[in-house]
Amino acid sequence: MTIETTQTGGPVAPHRSRLRPLSPAQVSITGGFWAELQDRNRRAIIPHIDHWLERAGWLGNFSAAPQDRRGREFSDSEIYKFLEAMAWELGRAPDRALAERYDAIVARVAAAQAPDGYLNTRFGRPGQPPRWSDLAMGHELYCLGHLIQAAVARARTGHPDDLLVRVACRAADLVCATFGDDGIASVDGHPVIEPALVELYRVTGEQRYLEQARLFVERRGRPVLPDDEWGREYYLDDVPVREATVFRGHAVRAVYLAAGALDLADETGDGELLDAVTGQWRRTVARRVYLTGGIGSRHLDEAFGEDFMLPPDRAYSETCAAVGSVMVAWRLLLAHGDPAAADLIERTLYNVIATSPRADGRAFFYSNTLHRRVPGPVPDPDRPHPRPIAAVRAPWFDVSCCPTNVSRTVAGLAGYVATSDDDGIQLHQYVPGTVAGRLTVTTRYPAEGEIRVRIDTDADEEWTLSLRVPAWAGTGATLTVGGHTWEVEPGYVTERRRWRRGDELLLCLPMEPRFTYPDPRIDAVRGCVAVERGPLVYALESVDLPDGVGVDEVRISSATPPRVVGGRVVVRGRRIVAAEGELPYAAGPPRVAGSDLGEIPLVTYHSWANRGPAGMRVWLPAD
Amino acid sequence: MTIETTQTGGPVAPHRSRLRPLSPAQVSITGGFWAELQDRNRRAIIPHIDHWLERAGWLGNFSAAPQDRRGREFSDSEIYKFLEAMAWELGRAPDRALAERYDAIVARVAAAQAPDGYLNTRFGRPGQPPRWSDLAMGHELYCLGHLIQAAVARARTGHPDDLLVRVACRAADLVCATFGDDGIASVDGHPVIEPALVELYRVTGEQRYLEQARLFVERRGRPVLPDDEWGREYYLDDVPVREATVFRGHAVRAVYLAAGALDLADETGDGELLDAVTGQWRRTVARRVYLTGGIGSRHLDEAFGEDFMLPPDRAYSETCAAVGSVMVAWRLLLAHGDPAAADLIERTLYNVIATSPRADGRAFFYSNTLHRRVPGPVPDPDRPHPRPIAAVRAPWFDVSCCPTNVSRTVAGLAGYVATSDDDGIQLHQYVPGTVAGRLTVTTRYPAEGEIRVRIDTDADEEWTLSLRVPAWAGTGATLTVGGHTWEVEPGYVTERRRWRRGDELLLCLPMEPRFTYPDPRIDAVRGCVAVERGPLVYALESVDLPDGVGVDEVRISSATPPRVVGGRVVVRGRRIVAAEGELPYAAGPPRVAGSDLGEIPLVTYHSWANRGPAGMRVWLPAD
Repeated sequence: MTIETTQTGGPVAPHRSRLRPLSPAQVSITGGFWAELQDRNRRAIIPHIDHWLERAGWLGNFSAAPQDRRGREFSDSEIYKFLEAMAWELGRAPDRALAERYDAIVARVAAAQAPDGYLNTRFGRPGQPPRWSDLAMGHELYCLGHLIQAAVARARTGHPDDLLVRVACRAADLVCATFGDDGIASVDGHPVIEPALVELYRVTGEQRYLEQARLFVERRGRPVLPDDEWGREYYLDDVPVREATVFRGHAVRAVYLAAGALDLADETGDGELLDAVTGQWRRTVARRVYLTGGIGSRHLDEAFGEDFMLPPDRAYSETCAAVGSVMVAWRLLLAHGDPAAADLIERTLYNVIATSPRADGRAFFYSNTLHRRVPGPVPDPDRPHPRPIAAVRAPWFDVSCCPTNVSRTVAGLAGYVATSDDDGIQLHQYVPGTVAGRLTVTTRYPAEGEIRVRIDTDADEEWTLSLRVPAWAGTGATLTVGGHTWEVEPGYVTERRRWRRGDELLLCLPMEPRFTYPDPRIDAVRGCVAVERGPLVYALESVDLPDGVGVDEVRISSATPPRVVGGRVVVRGRRIVAAEGELPYAAGPPRVAGSDLGEIPLVTYHSWANRGPAGMRVWLPAD
Repeated sequence: MTIETTQTGGPVAPHRSRLRPLSPAQVSITGGFWAELQDRNRRAIIPHIDHWLERAGWLGNFSAAPQDRRGREFSDSEIYKFLEAMAWELGRAPDRALAERYDAIVARVAAAQAPDGYLNTRFGRPGQPPRWSDLAMGHELYCLGHLIQAAVARARTGHPDDLLVRVACRAADLVCATFGDDGIASVDGHPVIEPALVELYRVTGEQRYLEQARLFVERRGRPVLPDDEWGREYYLDDVPVREATVFRGHAVRAVYLAAGALDLADETGDGELLDAVTGQWRRTVARRVYLTGGIGSRHLDEAFGEDFMLPPDRAYSETCAAVGSVMVAWRLLLAHGDPAAADLIERTLYNVIATSPRADGRAFFYSNTLHRRVPGPVPDPDRPHPRPIAAVRAPWFDVSCCPTNVSRTVAGLAGYVATSDDDGIQLHQYVPGTVAGRLTVTTRYPAEGEIRVRIDTDADEEWTLSLRVPAWAGTGATLTVGGHTWEVEPGYVTERRRWRRGDELLLCLPMEPRFTYPDPRIDAVRGCVAVERGPLVYALESVDLPDGVGVDEVRISSATPPRVVGGRVVVRGRRIVAAEGELPYAAGPPRVAGSDLGEIPLVTYHSWANRGPAGMRVWLPAD
């Protein structure tokens, strides 16, 4: 049986993968959590970004004189990520004003391209550093990578001849001429050109782009960049990609590079490379991922810590790293059909990517800590925030990579819902809507655990519908088909039938809130538990505590499971007050006084800090 | 009774303090831990620094053309800290070659001073940024502060008319003219000019220097510096000095500023300012100090974390911050006679400052972590290390502030041993040697706990000898005088007598190794214990574990106290092996397999990483 799915692909379109992506246009999201996010993106986030890109002058840079250029060396990339967001959004739901705005920005970008294809507002003009003069930190190829990604999104949403696609191809041609076998034998300090070139090859069929991506992936780690204050690991230039054992270094760079390596492995049939990156990912997920799905525990270099170095209070967990982590997990899901990859996508979407934008879509978290002792200064609501850390979400940042990354991801969310293979359809994420004209999903997930899947077409032969049972469901999930109900285990439950229009499946996921325990090797949360419900991580926020009680004074009773009271998840706890010494160290075990706090309400982690500055903890010390 | 002590002072010479410093020349250190450090400084550290200052070109900058200048914006300060080290060292033990080298360097520095007193190799010449054009990060006043500190050391060691003193006064005059009431109403992003100007006032009597220090202290926090990517807290420009409640921001900056504020409070009789800084220090020590005495838990901005944010694995604990912490604690000890200040000095000297230099004195730790999971790359033994973090001590750094700071502190160590007041002498630190011609101390401390103090002069009247009983001694210390032995409590035990030559006191401190427990509010070490013996913190180093066992797999039995076996401190422990999951989180408490490791030897923290790269833990998870 052949499912009639297009092969144009969504956020990525591999040729050889085990599962085939559907294009976002084949999946409609009609309500619920994801639809609200997409609506917020359309209504608020996209106009907000547009406003700030003009106001900050980063859009203006494309027509400004060199000496008037504003912003950091990578600011061009924000315009490209914004174009990518608009491209997916126009593909999802056409809109004339948005389309005109898209065209106007593309025209401004195109006008800045040099006759030989070079495009960067920061390098190469009089008074600026020469082209390619700072590969480690200049971000020239990085910017072009995002330009290409935007063009790929535009091509995949029905505009293969868009001006932006032509601009991107001219730039890619220059990259190949400059960094090819006879050219500069180096790489960009910040990967993204790698997946971009493979994706542009997929769109255009131009073999040189694939070859150039291969050169960039293979050169890295030989090493080719300077051993500067950041160190080789930061740039992923410490070890060749196929020899590494774990993701490390700057988290965003690491996952973008892994995405490129996976794309390359797919197109070249390089099983060794696929295996290498798959192994790196497995170890990373087992040892270097926060409960939220966030990655990157170090502020200094926005980098992965060592295995099990996952401090909640200094969790950097950059929003952009979560976006890149989803890119990698999606490629691995397509390559292997591994449910752990879909689990991680779900965890990351609900608990990092959805955490970044404020409820009104006009402010963002850049870093997503899991513990805030004291809120610190509140960012100016009308000024770019100069730092990644803020007490509450900030409207814009001097380094504002995250808002555009959230926007492009949310606009393309439909691409992550389902896939097909020769035998059927796989449902990975549960959102109300329709899939490939074959299925209608009805659910209030993640608020509730019932997921109803109705078949919308009659088939002449058997085909297989696969539904993901998340790992967090444990032994608590059931499937009901044709009046029969049975327990289903985490992974993919598959039902192969000659499906008829109107057939229904009901997947029930257990939605009782639950305690989650950390690996004993994570030093930073020893003796703590977290609370989850379905795919959502919960947090204790100081505004929910009695006056004068801080989040760090709460001790949870782990003998009393969390429960839902009046629509809120609560835990039982007490306040402890520690004696103050001259030093915070003593000759005996600490003595503390305690008082009962009764049941303490928690909030979903993604919604925290929407009620003003607050203290917050995900991991709660337990008695 | 008047103890004949000079009032020239050592590392600081306040006018109004409760206790008066002795000059280093009045205290001889004749053996033991401190003497070995001073010998190492003379033999190895000073020549090593000299070598690198020439090799890196930072000394050469004083005669180089502007375009040939090398090093970071603050490299001049390393020459000044080195001159300060040499000045103290020449005061301690004259040496012709060293004196000639000192004079030669001073001549090179003096030759670079502009006719109006300005002195900085990085600013103000053709092709360089103008003077005072980057107060936040340019470090011009910071460099002059260290120049002045060197001059003060030289003046206090018998050379009040040294060329360096004249150079420093000319520079200070320019600072007063430029930043006075009618001048630039700002401060340097990196304090140190503040204590330096007060100290220069103490040496010269020049009132303007004191007034300028007052302006710098009072301007800060109004705010006067830009709110840039580092934030106002980083520069201590968030809150006026006298309104702050705790040390915060960049740790070195914070303690240097506090030292200046204390000096100012002393000279102006400003009790409010003294009380403010004292309160800040008390809270800082109670909530923001590592067990080693180290301060600064954040790598990103080399800054204090919030209260109880003391992760051992990301302990920055910069060597220079420890130096500054000793400067502050010493001033507070003089001001209040507070034994907690002397306790902290001891803790910091033995466990941070002594940790930095390698056993051979030719490599240094910049940052002093309390937990190293994996050593990481080993620094090049013949190249400046580009980063503050290294698997083992590095010979030099691109930012090499710590070696010179260690050297100047070690050269002046004798200044911290004892003080006097109108009633007698106070012994704060226990080293074999003589004090002010009145006392001879004989001890093998900290290897052993017996401290024998012999009186060397006959007195006509009663005077008081005060001996510090460290807080860590708990109830275990005894004092023996004239055949009587009694228990003494932590703090200062005072004996007022008409002392006769040959009288002896024997202070016995309890030297059994002991477990130390953390405050329950330090999340990062929940469920852990540390081991201390006397003033020394101990650590588990991977090279002492059986092959294949990592430091993070060890669980200590806290029911079995540490003990000394064959000269080594050992603890009882087992190896635990945790099951590996898809994610490092699970629905139930972690299950681990264990195997007995018997008795595991520890090392003194200050000596770790002298046997090659290793994993290391100070805080050990306990069963």
